[in-house]
Amino acid sequence: MMKEIRGEQLPGCMTPGRLAEMAGRKATVEGCVHNIRALGGIAFVILRTGRYLLQTVYDQSVCRDDAAALEDGCYISATGTVRLEQRAAGGVELLLDGFEVLSRPAAPYPLNMADRSLKATLGTNLEYRAVALRHPRERAVFRVMEGIENGFRDFMLRNDFAEIHSPKITAISAEGGAEVFRLKYFGSDAVLAQSPQFYKQMGVAFFDRVFEVGEVYRAELHNTSRHLNEYVGLDFEMGYIRDMTDVMNMETAMLRHVMAHLAENYQPEIELLGVRLPAVEAIPAVKFADALAYLKTVGGGKNRNDLTADDEVLLCSHILQQTGSEFVFVTHFPSAKRPFYVMDDQENPKEALSFDLLFRGLEITTGGQRIHDYAQQVAKMKARNMDPADFESFLAAHKYGLPPHGGLGIGLERLTSKLCDLANIRQASLFPRDLNHLAP
Amino acid sequence: MMKEIRGEQLPGCMTPGRLAEMAGRKATVEGCVHNIRALGGIAFVILRTGRYLLQTVYDQSVCRDDAAALEDGCYISATGTVRLEQRAAGGVELLLDGFEVLSRPAAPYPLNMADRSLKATLGTNLEYRAVALRHPRERAVFRVMEGIENGFRDFMLRNDFAEIHSPKITAISAEGGAEVFRLKYFGSDAVLAQSPQFYKQMGVAFFDRVFEVGEVYRAELHNTSRHLNEYVGLDFEMGYIRDMTDVMNMETAMLRHVMAHLAENYQPEIELLGVRLPAVEAIPAVKFADALAYLKTVGGGKNRNDLTADDEVLLCSHILQQTGSEFVFVTHFPSAKRPFYVMDDQENPKEALSFDLLFRGLEITTGGQRIHDYAQQVAKMKARNMDPADFESFLAAHKYGLPPHGGLGIGLERLTSKLCDLANIRQASLFPRDLNHLAP
Repeated sequence: MMKEIRGEQLPGCMTPGRLAEMAGRKATVEGCVHNIRALGGIAFVILRTGRYLLQTVYDQSVCRDDAAALEDGCYISATGTVRLEQRAAGGVELLLDGFEVLSRPAAPYPLNMADRSLKATLGTNLEYRAVALRHPRERAVFRVMEGIENGFRDFMLRNDFAEIHSPKITAISAEGGAEVFRLKYFGSDAVLAQSPQFYKQMGVAFFDRVFEVGEVYRAELHNTSRHLNEYVGLDFEMGYIRDMTDVMNMETAMLRHVMAHLAENYQPEIELLGVRLPAVEAIPAVKFADALAYLKTVGGGKNRNDLTADDEVLLCSHILQQTGSEFVFVTHFPSAKRPFYVMDDQENPKEALSFDLLFRGLEITTGGQRIHDYAQQVAKMKARNMDPADFESFLAAHKYGLPPHGGLGIGLERLTSKLCDLANIRQASLFPRDLNHLAP
Repeated sequence: MMKEIRGEQLPGCMTPGRLAEMAGRKATVEGCVHNIRALGGIAFVILRTGRYLLQTVYDQSVCRDDAAALEDGCYISATGTVRLEQRAAGGVELLLDGFEVLSRPAAPYPLNMADRSLKATLGTNLEYRAVALRHPRERAVFRVMEGIENGFRDFMLRNDFAEIHSPKITAISAEGGAEVFRLKYFGSDAVLAQSPQFYKQMGVAFFDRVFEVGEVYRAELHNTSRHLNEYVGLDFEMGYIRDMTDVMNMETAMLRHVMAHLAENYQPEIELLGVRLPAVEAIPAVKFADALAYLKTVGGGKNRNDLTADDEVLLCSHILQQTGSEFVFVTHFPSAKRPFYVMDDQENPKEALSFDLLFRGLEITTGGQRIHDYAQQVAKMKARNMDPADFESFLAAHKYGLPPHGGLGIGLERLTSKLCDLANIRQASLFPRDLNHLAP
């Protein structure tokens, strides 16, 4: 009546490297038939595993099964002899002894997997998302994303940040404004969190340093190549800072670690996508006012309180030319346009101790120093005609004490799309949510 | 006009180990005043850092600053001489030369931090959550949770699973039923995801093996010690399985890795909380029908289609006595009560190839083998009076092909609460969401 499960595992995904170690011997590979090229009695059957393409060779005089049973998109378990073959991807191939068909599609793919790049408009790509993501280049983007996320996490954990999960159904909104998704929560009015801001600030009170990787919701009506309505935020918040430079230094060191993590663990995707990993050495930091003055000399700087998308491109191009850096911090934004929890510069209260990080023409981070003193936070709320009573549970953190602290948020899809040089941020979201897409 | 940020970092959180290495020398420690015990001209000022308590000693004949400036809850930077001292927690203390007060609370804590355990009802604990979580034992639970999550992630990445993020705002509901949170998405009807089920099955098509750590939403009206309305799911899904035993083996190996990861990295919390890490050797697996037959002999088994909460306790106790295992798999649940995507046993279609994992009297996992064949999935939907057209984007994965696959979901808070022996699952959620709590 009782079985025992001992924790024996199936082998992992077959890789060219693992296969090459078995040269001259028999091996079994499971994969999806990606493409078949027949040449007389020989056929090259390319298998797609979870990360690689592997070449198998069907020779009707060797293989006990009939290749007529194979079609694009069917899943097989193939057995044969491993041979080193320089012309095959990964330098190795499998001469088939036989195969078993595990599963068949009910219809042919509506998109061609064998093209080097997926030849489909963005609309078609999203319409057939369950197929498009099978294309080697399309899916590789999400391995790069995995590498960014886990390089970030690895750095945070090594530097004594605690990983937290904050609720996404909340009663109050961190950023204010109308751009929130609203829902009923057992009869109460609730919103989906626009950021983990309040919770990570509270987290500093118990863990000194915290980070979170989690969904963020923005009900913005923007329909651009750089906005998503649901995205993944990489957030951190750290106590005992001297000023926001500590936060910027932490981000610089983290990005350096992330790029090294990608270089070490994601070479197949870096090569496939032609990713250029940026050098993260000294990142220049310019004050917003100075950036604006420069931008006006080149026809930009139309908004005196913020950078436009065009400004970001212009400024990055200028900084790259001047310093060789593909990143630039812009600091000291006008206080009026920054959220209520941001600390203002004591020397010039019209400037906030707040920064953005731009990368290759796109803002990927907003961060800064926060107000830690209760009276100061209440006063700033009142000056903005906000009622502190609406924020009682957040203000409890300040009331019972917080160390000086600051932090930031990074848009994971934005950083991924810039690294992979994607034209549209939707290509860096498995199942993007925008004005027109609620499915799949 | 331009600064350079070079990635210089603040030192991490001070630990007793790092401090002890500096014995006889000067050190600076930043922390929150946790407790002050005065003894004549001497006072023991216990500092709370992000993970530890550190003893500092104030001697008015040595310290240049006046201890009268210190109060519970204020944040200080303290400098002094490091001394090994067996009676201090961690075997080390700091004789204060001086300190700087960085920040002060606006009000005294409403809860006593100095008690070994927090003396507060659950209601008070949740009402003052921003304070309660500062208590060493309360916060330690979330380090254990971090360890479970990252042990899980580490195992998954080492075993070729890709980490994914699926959308939480969705058009359709994976589990069906009325227990979903509804919202308007730019004029369309949407729900919050009850699980990443559809997306991780789709993910198998492009990555073979996927996992996700993410929020899960259940609008259940349950108000019990084991339910939350928003929780964190640890999910995985793997292709090319032979049967559901492969999934159970993978989980067993993963749990073994998680317990080793906790033992290696979370000793301070294990000791503080008295966590008993379970041995994960062979986990017994019993069929539901056999479990039910046993339960009836001991007054349980009232529901012939599922296990009740009482049954779970009775069965775990029996298995522990019989085998020494604190875990037990229950397999082959009645098909009628399992979701439409579950594969039924070919030999007995009334039984589903579906399992639960129980741990110390509580279900922590549901998993099984899924249907991969398009026609079979459509037929099962129709047999249940479901309209396949409602699930078109999910069925696209089957239509264009999926390998045989299975997977599972684990409730992170449930596993954490059982490991830490908490009376209520709310103590394993930083900011729990239940029928009565939408804030903080």
